[in-house]
Amino acid sequence: METKKRLLTGMQSTGDLHIGNYFGALKPFVDTYKAYDSIIMVADLHALTSIRDASIMRQNILNVVRDYVAVGVDPKQAILFKQSDVPAHTELAWIFECLVSVPFLMQAHAYKDKVAKGIDASAGLFNYPMLMASDILLYDAEVVPVGEDQRQHIEYAREAGGKFNRAFGDTFVEPQEMIIKGVGIVAGTDGQKMSKSYKNTIPLFGTKDEVARAVMSIVTDSSGERPQNVYAIHQLFKNKAELEIVYEEHKGKYKNLKDALIEDIENVIAPMREKRESITDADIKDILKDGAEKANERAVRKMEVVRKKIGVTL
Amino acid sequence: METKKRLLTGMQSTGDLHIGNYFGALKPFVDTYKAYDSIIMVADLHALTSIRDASIMRQNILNVVRDYVAVGVDPKQAILFKQSDVPAHTELAWIFECLVSVPFLMQAHAYKDKVAKGIDASAGLFNYPMLMASDILLYDAEVVPVGEDQRQHIEYAREAGGKFNRAFGDTFVEPQEMIIKGVGIVAGTDGQKMSKSYKNTIPLFGTKDEVARAVMSIVTDSSGERPQNVYAIHQLFKNKAELEIVYEEHKGKYKNLKDALIEDIENVIAPMREKRESITDADIKDILKDGAEKANERAVRKMEVVRKKIGVTL
Repeated sequence: METKKRLLTGMQSTGDLHIGNYFGALKPFVDTYKAYDSIIMVADLHALTSIRDASIMRQNILNVVRDYVAVGVDPKQAILFKQSDVPAHTELAWIFECLVSVPFLMQAHAYKDKVAKGIDASAGLFNYPMLMASDILLYDAEVVPVGEDQRQHIEYAREAGGKFNRAFGDTFVEPQEMIIKGVGIVAGTDGQKMSKSYKNTIPLFGTKDEVARAVMSIVTDSSGERPQNVYAIHQLFKNKAELEIVYEEHKGKYKNLKDALIEDIENVIAPMREKRESITDADIKDILKDGAEKANERAVRKMEVVRKKIGVTL
Repeated sequence: METKKRLLTGMQSTGDLHIGNYFGALKPFVDTYKAYDSIIMVADLHALTSIRDASIMRQNILNVVRDYVAVGVDPKQAILFKQSDVPAHTELAWIFECLVSVPFLMQAHAYKDKVAKGIDASAGLFNYPMLMASDILLYDAEVVPVGEDQRQHIEYAREAGGKFNRAFGDTFVEPQEMIIKGVGIVAGTDGQKMSKSYKNTIPLFGTKDEVARAVMSIVTDSSGERPQNVYAIHQLFKNKAELEIVYEEHKGKYKNLKDALIEDIENVIAPMREKRESITDADIKDILKDGAEKANERAVRKMEVVRKKIGVTL
C-alpha cells in the first residue's frame, strides 16, 4: 500500500456560497483531497480574531461543515474537525512564539495591512501565523492547499518548524504549498468576476427559483447570436460539444438559452442542495466529534515528542 | 465552613536558593498559602521564553518543586502542578490575544525593557502577559501574590478579563495583587542585600560545612563589640531576647558569635535540607500528576463556560 501524503487545509465560513466559489475552489478541492491523507480543519480559533458573537460563531461552524459535506467532502475519507477541539494547536503555537521574534511576525501581510490602514491589530491577528504554523506542523502535513496570496503562511510555518528543529533537534517536516488549480475566474451575471461584493452571483445552494432569478438577470448584449455572459457560465455545466448543439438550436433566442442554463444548473446543484438540507446539526456534531477524536489522537502523539524535546516531560 | 479565597502563584526555578530567598519570599508564602484555596503553578511554559535546553528545563521543574516542598509547601494543602500539563492555559491565552491590541502589549515592562536594550523580543515574551492573565483567570483566582515590580501583570490580567466580560458577558472575576510582606531586605555576608550576583549568600540547603564557610566569610569590623553583619543575619534565626544573652556572653568574641550563628542556622535549615534530600524524582512526578488532574478538572470546567460564551460549543 502506497502511503498517501498528508494534507491539511483550514476552512472558515465565508457566508452563502455561489457557483464561483464552487468551481473556483470547492470542486477542485473535492476532486483532490481523497488522493491525500487529508485533514480538514474548521478554523474557529482563527475566526475569533474577527468574530465576537457566539451565535454567529456557532452558525459559521455549522455552515462551513454543512457546505463542505454538501459539495462532496466525505468525513469518512478525511479527518474533519474543528480547531478549538484540539488544545494542542494553541500549545504548539505558544512554543513557536517563544522561538520567533516580534519583528519577524511584523512582516506578515495581514498584520502589515492592518497597520497600513491605521488600525490597531489585535495580538491574535499578530500571532496568527504561529497558530497557523502549529495547525500545519502538528499533523506533519506535507502539503497545504493555498491561494497565491497565502504562500507566506506556509513560509512562516516552515520558518517556525525550522527554528524548532535547529533548537531542539529534528521534529517537524517541511510543509509545501499546493496551488490547486480551479477553472480560473468564474464570470458573474454581469461578466465581471463572480463575487458577492459585485452582487453578480448565482447561489450554489439556491432554489430553482432563486437560480432562475439570477440567470434571468444575466446581462446580455444584442450584438451577437450568442450571449457571452450566459455562455461563460454555461460552459461550467456542459462541455463544448454539448453547448454547440444548444446554442445552435436556440441561436439568438436568449430567453431559451437562459432557460436551458437554469435547467443545467439545477441538474448539477439540486443534489448538493438536497444533500445540504438533509444534514442536521446533530449530524455535524457527530462528524466533528469523530474528527476531534482522530485529530486529538495524532496531535497528542506529536505533542508527546515535542514535550520531550523541550524538556517539560519529567 | 467559610470559603477560602482562591490564590494563584506561579513559580520558576531561580537556581540554588539562599536564606535571603527563604526569609524574603518562601517563608512568608509558606506562612500564608494554607489560609487560601491555593494553586501553585510551575511556570514551565513561561520559562520557555528563555530556556532552550531540555535537560535544564527538566532539572528546573524538578528543583523548584523540590525546593517548595522542602521549605514547607504541602501538596495536600494546595494544587501543585505544572503549566504545560494543563492545555487550557494556552487556549485561554489565545482567546485573550484576540481581544487585546498589539500596542497594549507593547506597554508591558518586560517587552519595553528588551526593546530599550536593543534586543529583538520573542513573540513569546511579547505575549506572555496574556498567558499570565490566562493562568490567573482560568482558576478564578482572587488574589495573586506578587512583588512590587509585578503589579503590572495583574493589571494586564484584569484588563484581559474585563475585555472578555464586556465582549461576551460576565465570566471572570477581578484578581487582586497581594503583596506578601517578608522580613524586608536580608543582609548578605558583606552587609549588602543578600543576592547571588553579589556572591554574599548563605545557601539555604547547604551542608553545615558550606554554611560554616559562608558564615566565617562574614565581613566584620573591629569597631564595636557586636559584629553588625553577623547580628543582622542572626536575628533571622533567634529573637531579640535570645540574642541578647548570646551577644552578652560572647561580647567581642567574633569567632564564638559566628559559631553560635552556624549552630542556629543549622537548627533551622537541617530539617529542610533533609526533607529536600528525601524527595525523589518519582515523588515529584506523583505530586505533579495529582496536581495536573486537579488543575485540569478546574480548568476544563472553566473553559466549558468560556467556550460556550465565544460560541465554539455547538
